[in-house]
Amino acid sequence: MGSRMAEHLIANGHPLHVHNRTRKKAEALLKKGAVWHDTPESAAAASDTVITMLGLPSDVEQVYFGRTGAGGVLAASKPGSLLIDMTTSSPRLAERISRAAEERGIEALDAPVSGGDVGARDASLVIMVGGRQEAFDRAVPLFEQLGKSITLLGPAGNGQRCKLVNQIAVAVGMVAWCEALAVAKAARLDPSMVQGVIDGGAAGSWGLSNLAPRALSADFQPGFLVRHLVKDIRLAQEEAECHGVNLPGLEVARRLYEILKEAGYGEAGTQVLYHYYDTNKGVI
Amino acid sequence: MGSRMAEHLIANGHPLHVHNRTRKKAEALLKKGAVWHDTPESAAAASDTVITMLGLPSDVEQVYFGRTGAGGVLAASKPGSLLIDMTTSSPRLAERISRAAEERGIEALDAPVSGGDVGARDASLVIMVGGRQEAFDRAVPLFEQLGKSITLLGPAGNGQRCKLVNQIAVAVGMVAWCEALAVAKAARLDPSMVQGVIDGGAAGSWGLSNLAPRALSADFQPGFLVRHLVKDIRLAQEEAECHGVNLPGLEVARRLYEILKEAGYGEAGTQVLYHYYDTNKGVI
Repeated sequence: MGSRMAEHLIANGHPLHVHNRTRKKAEALLKKGAVWHDTPESAAAASDTVITMLGLPSDVEQVYFGRTGAGGVLAASKPGSLLIDMTTSSPRLAERISRAAEERGIEALDAPVSGGDVGARDASLVIMVGGRQEAFDRAVPLFEQLGKSITLLGPAGNGQRCKLVNQIAVAVGMVAWCEALAVAKAARLDPSMVQGVIDGGAAGSWGLSNLAPRALSADFQPGFLVRHLVKDIRLAQEEAECHGVNLPGLEVARRLYEILKEAGYGEAGTQVLYHYYDTNKGVI
Repeated sequence: MGSRMAEHLIANGHPLHVHNRTRKKAEALLKKGAVWHDTPESAAAASDTVITMLGLPSDVEQVYFGRTGAGGVLAASKPGSLLIDMTTSSPRLAERISRAAEERGIEALDAPVSGGDVGARDASLVIMVGGRQEAFDRAVPLFEQLGKSITLLGPAGNGQRCKLVNQIAVAVGMVAWCEALAVAKAARLDPSMVQGVIDGGAAGSWGLSNLAPRALSADFQPGFLVRHLVKDIRLAQEEAECHGVNLPGLEVARRLYEILKEAGYGEAGTQVLYHYYDTNKGVI
């Protein structure tokens, strides 16, 4: 997703300094004039604004604080620069980054996105931002090159919190249409006909409209990876636990998606859950 | 819902014979020329087409087969007449009615609907039909006066099966957005702002768009009653069990909605589930 988003920035005339674990993935950007750096610190030191799009919270921690808890992008960035983490990550880590940035005279925002590969390519992402208003105002012109919906949800961490809230609805929503269509198939209805009928009413959802047709034609390409949803569900559960909220629906989704991940479907699209209900009859 | 649907039929010039347990609820129709009958059998004997919209499957059984297993609408109807049950009811009962009708030279359809009070009033119902093609073809001109989407899903019982599939997605979909927004509120995000942000993406659903705003403004008017959803969930679980499909997500929804019903919320709208997460922290 990072490279697709970077394409928009370079197309809009921003000089770009880039780093990635796998240099090959940056080649298209380098051909368009982006400058390669061997470390995140080096890229950060050369930039006024740093945008990160990483995998796990542990990756975010390492890139911002360095491998040993010293160094990292926070130490390497110039005073006055703006750091924007667009990874879906831990709200508490976003707060830690924000505090560390403030101590160094740097601005930091957490700005995870929804909309996936397609949203990154079409610059139609939903961008959920946490941090200070001034930092948000500085970042808006960049965000407008990446997304269609840009919202400041409060102080540092609240972008991540909103994204995790989103992922709760996504994960449990997958269970909703997968259970429905699994019964349709088992009862020898035509699941595609049923999908078309029920999507127009109170059962309708983004997943039923967009992912169910793929699942019904046995297309389990991502979309959004099972292993990424497992990560997001765990982060959402941590957040809910912090606030004493019990999420029995999300717990069902966690168990199902962990079974899928352990069964080797980590790199499949999340709609593979339908396949699980169809073949394993939803036993957890 | 029955009276609202009957309004369309009488407005379209159909002579109408009506019965209801509470005569008062038929008064508006009687003023428009509908003929009152003291029993369902009497109304059926006077009609070529019989439409029922009842409460529980036990009500359907009693109206079609009579209180003692003899009599009822099936015995009272003229040979060649068409019986249409639009109650959300048991697929197996629909099959029994269909067999009994066939033995008497009567056509029967199960044709439950989705779209609620508003859909009944605006004639925008989704109508899910099970039964013979010939009976469906006879009924279509009537259905077109009641709904916008009319689909034959296979033999008797399949209209009910499709409706139960719909209700699985509805019930688990409620859990999805209620859990999401409960965490938003507990984490001190602005739940209305979050609803607006996440509804535009992969977390979007009919419930998040239509019911969540009501729930967030503490409007728990139905819409669709908690006690009706409890009935539908049980029917859906029975159907899933018949086919050996396990529905852990629906089981969570059942437990939550039964708690709500037992706590006195049976007559509230289904969006009251958000209130439960907000106040009881989702403990089941």
